[in-house]
Amino acid sequence: MSLQRWLPCLAWGRDYNRETAAQDGLAAMIVTLMLIPQSLAYAMLAGLPPVTGLYASMLPLLAYALFGSSRTLAVGPVAVASLMTASALSPLFPAGSPEYIGAAMLLAALSGLVLAGMALLRLGFIANFLSHPVISGFISASALLIAISQLKHILGISAQGDTLPELIPELLRHLPDFSAPTLLIGALAMAWLWWARRHAKGALMQLGASPTLAANLSKAAPALAIIVAILAVAGFDLGAAGVKVVGAIPQGLPGLALPTLDLDLAGQLLPAAVLISLVGFVESVSVGQTLAAKRRQPIDPDNELLGLGAANVAAAVSGGFPVTGGFARSVVNHDAGAQTPMAGVFTAAGIALGVLLLTPLLHDLPQAVLAATIIVAVLSLVDLGAVLRTWRYSRQDGLAQVVTLAGVLLIGVETGILLGVGLSLLLFLWRTSRPHMAVVGLVPGSEHFRNVERHRVIESPRVLSIRVDESLYFPNARFLEERVNELVAQHPEVRHLVLMCSSVNLIDASALDSLEAIAHRLGASGIQLHLSEVKGPVMDQLNRSDFLQRFGGQVFLSQFQALHCLDPDCVSAPGAGSKGEAGQNRPQAMQDRRQNQDTAV
Amino acid sequence: MSLQRWLPCLAWGRDYNRETAAQDGLAAMIVTLMLIPQSLAYAMLAGLPPVTGLYASMLPLLAYALFGSSRTLAVGPVAVASLMTASALSPLFPAGSPEYIGAAMLLAALSGLVLAGMALLRLGFIANFLSHPVISGFISASALLIAISQLKHILGISAQGDTLPELIPELLRHLPDFSAPTLLIGALAMAWLWWARRHAKGALMQLGASPTLAANLSKAAPALAIIVAILAVAGFDLGAAGVKVVGAIPQGLPGLALPTLDLDLAGQLLPAAVLISLVGFVESVSVGQTLAAKRRQPIDPDNELLGLGAANVAAAVSGGFPVTGGFARSVVNHDAGAQTPMAGVFTAAGIALGVLLLTPLLHDLPQAVLAATIIVAVLSLVDLGAVLRTWRYSRQDGLAQVVTLAGVLLIGVETGILLGVGLSLLLFLWRTSRPHMAVVGLVPGSEHFRNVERHRVIESPRVLSIRVDESLYFPNARFLEERVNELVAQHPEVRHLVLMCSSVNLIDASALDSLEAIAHRLGASGIQLHLSEVKGPVMDQLNRSDFLQRFGGQVFLSQFQALHCLDPDCVSAPGAGSKGEAGQNRPQAMQDRRQNQDTAV
Repeated sequence: MSLQRWLPCLAWGRDYNRETAAQDGLAAMIVTLMLIPQSLAYAMLAGLPPVTGLYASMLPLLAYALFGSSRTLAVGPVAVASLMTASALSPLFPAGSPEYIGAAMLLAALSGLVLAGMALLRLGFIANFLSHPVISGFISASALLIAISQLKHILGISAQGDTLPELIPELLRHLPDFSAPTLLIGALAMAWLWWARRHAKGALMQLGASPTLAANLSKAAPALAIIVAILAVAGFDLGAAGVKVVGAIPQGLPGLALPTLDLDLAGQLLPAAVLISLVGFVESVSVGQTLAAKRRQPIDPDNELLGLGAANVAAAVSGGFPVTGGFARSVVNHDAGAQTPMAGVFTAAGIALGVLLLTPLLHDLPQAVLAATIIVAVLSLVDLGAVLRTWRYSRQDGLAQVVTLAGVLLIGVETGILLGVGLSLLLFLWRTSRPHMAVVGLVPGSEHFRNVERHRVIESPRVLSIRVDESLYFPNARFLEERVNELVAQHPEVRHLVLMCSSVNLIDASALDSLEAIAHRLGASGIQLHLSEVKGPVMDQLNRSDFLQRFGGQVFLSQFQALHCLDPDCVSAPGAGSKGEAGQNRPQAMQDRRQNQDTAV
Repeated sequence: MSLQRWLPCLAWGRDYNRETAAQDGLAAMIVTLMLIPQSLAYAMLAGLPPVTGLYASMLPLLAYALFGSSRTLAVGPVAVASLMTASALSPLFPAGSPEYIGAAMLLAALSGLVLAGMALLRLGFIANFLSHPVISGFISASALLIAISQLKHILGISAQGDTLPELIPELLRHLPDFSAPTLLIGALAMAWLWWARRHAKGALMQLGASPTLAANLSKAAPALAIIVAILAVAGFDLGAAGVKVVGAIPQGLPGLALPTLDLDLAGQLLPAAVLISLVGFVESVSVGQTLAAKRRQPIDPDNELLGLGAANVAAAVSGGFPVTGGFARSVVNHDAGAQTPMAGVFTAAGIALGVLLLTPLLHDLPQAVLAATIIVAVLSLVDLGAVLRTWRYSRQDGLAQVVTLAGVLLIGVETGILLGVGLSLLLFLWRTSRPHMAVVGLVPGSEHFRNVERHRVIESPRVLSIRVDESLYFPNARFLEERVNELVAQHPEVRHLVLMCSSVNLIDASALDSLEAIAHRLGASGIQLHLSEVKGPVMDQLNRSDFLQRFGGQVFLSQFQALHCLDPDCVSAPGAGSKGEAGQNRPQAMQDRRQNQDTAV
């Protein structure tokens, strides 16, 4: 039972049969065809020899199949993690050097340990602090950055830089050196991939293919582009014409080796490893949950952490670099009918076969085609409309998104994401420090109390009912005191003030002091403070102090009960309340207000 | 009108008359008698020549009288600000050197500009982020640190250090060098001051003094100790016996001079200046509000910021160091009958008279007596019982208090306070990331809904009512999804889920996505999501998205209305609801629970 908790493969492995295997095998073939060019391309994006992308697509898939809980998540190198790898390592070592490759393995190892550690300590909730607007801004900015950084391969020029202010001048400076045949190949590849993504399925169906076959065949477009490009380079000797190619790739499977443990370097890489882990985890879980929901399968965040952790450790010991669950390939895997993580095992076998048989053929693969694959893939991730939608919904969320986006583009990947998270939290804290407070009155014909400025309600002249729309804690404790003072000054006839605590989820020590001060000051003005609708957990805490004994007022179960007790005439007026108590009709005790009634809910 | 907004002195100055002047004058005399020894002592604590304490007690009082809004706050050097000054400057320059004195003036100038800037930008709310437990822990720790740091003067030894781990070994190492006559004077002074603080008033009343006279006379105990000590040192030539004295004090008023503007140094001092400003502001406003409440006078935080800012700038240009409103002296000022800030002007005049006439007499004043004044004053600020009280009320507040206390004692004043504030905020955010959620049911005989586990309520088998006790925002968005899934799984017969939003003060973009996901998943299981008791501001925001059009459910004014609409039989059952609608009595539609009823409110 406990073993199965950490090894979800025991659950699906028990019922594994030939039919499931056939479905997994078909999905694996399609994903393999898609993954080979992607792996090569993302390795290049990470500043690593392309073959390391293939290495990172074998053992990690096996490790995830053992520990991961998603049935259809496809793990491997992804664009954003590759960009973050490059931005963490490029300031330290020359891209592609042995030190750089070793550091990439160490980064994967650190990322794996961070993820596994989070699983064991159940710290998965930390990922929740990456808000959707921050993630969205980060993904859009990263995709733009990736696309622009790959332009150099399309143009056949060299350009260094991790941010727009570095990249753009470099690109402009080297633009005159562009290679015409490279640009031609790159542009053709982009056009083909762009067309295939949009129209290939429709075209294949018009040619008579079934929808499923057409969808699966269209996934082979990048592989086809690669084959054609290799043939073109080899046939026309374009390498001699200045088209940069992948070059010699070591044949055979990667040897297993622990990354060199350099503690200083590990310390330098740790912040990047944490961020890569968190971002990768969020991306994986989002994809995993979306796909799992379609088939009503469970996703356990702790299992995901462990599965991704194991995958990264596996990448580290087999010459790879940080990996995570990819969006596009997981959807393809799911749609192609994958039933279990065994599809990942088959994919790994397919990649291994590719490494053993195909690597000599990849020598003439132009880098421009790989860059085209990346550009077309990542541009679909850019969603600038989301910025507008978020801004329209909430200025605060929109600001966080814009700051993340600008930070990633202009300052750097890690700084941008940290700025976004920090700003989101600060804006929330600032918001809670100036809570909305409403004077509430009784909605006629009910026992419900709402804001007097938005609803047509009945108010008592003797009892002032105030609803505080926030937990009471130190940043807003003094604000509460000031607002209560103001509101009391505006209602000179009031003899009782009821603080309706339906929104108060916490009263901390500072706020307790403020409540005492409020009760004391009100008492000096002949007004009694009461509380209503105090929730269980808050009541438990108040009972640990002597406030309730000393403040002199009552704690009412509901605001209606409070008004019923403190001003019975008000609730028994015609149309008010619902008890039908006998009582004098005192219309002068009521004030009817009707403002903004169209916004009333 | 606008001028009076920033110059409260125009308000009280208009009605100023001879009677008020007499009351202010008497209070000023008593405060002057108290302030002269305190000023000398706190300057020594700040690592400055004692006379700078007198300088800091003249012009700043005039500046505060112009701009401050508190009628009775007494401004000047205080223990905590002096300790913070020493801890900011001692790593940079040797104590008492001209550079040190110049840096203290610069620190006062920065602090003044920070305060004035906060006033103009209306940033006073920042001070609210210092929670009461953090302030209490900080004050207790500072007082302990001050008392221990002054032991060296009582023992007549030298010992450097700003934290306990530095101070304690130094004190122990130099302990054998202690000076017996110094220790005797210091111990006698401490004993006298301690006795005077506790019993002098009673003793004077037994001798026939009126309570007011006795209280005022007892404030002169430190001044008496100083006179006796000076006479003893002069009479028995104790200076030759190793008793360290204050020494030559330059006579005359301080010259006005701008502090040297060293931008590098200013940058280094700025963080300390900000913290000194915030802490000083919080202390002043607390004292000011307490005293103002007694006489029902207004305190405007913005005026206080400007008043304290002006006081610090005045301290900077007249050879002083950071000042703020002191607790003890303000209470004395208030109790002695001060009516307006003119009492501060008179006090300043008294101090100036002292500087002109008395400074030659202070040459033989033993440092041990000043140290005794400090120790007795600050030990009354140590309140370790507060740690226990806070811990009992709230583990989170207690933890923040202990961390602040330990941080100040062991690491440093600024680090300690920043640790406390940071931890308080993190604990709050952590708390909101895992909100309390309750399944609620109808309280019989009312329209009020409460937790089924705490109250005896009526539940509908078809409608699941969930109250979320927190704003919905990114750290808890995923948690909400998971909890809703769990709760729905526990209630398989449910067809409607009503999210009661009475505690939801915000639904941010991430939470909106989660709500859409919840509605979508519930819909796939044949359950309809509804909302109830959505507040006006939240509703306004939801209307800026298309969620309400797309989620398929209804938004009910109240939870009762929701149940009334979705399961009318449930609310019309005997004892339920209060409308008395006709309807079938379906007892099987009700579940009565009664748990923890003694905690029910």
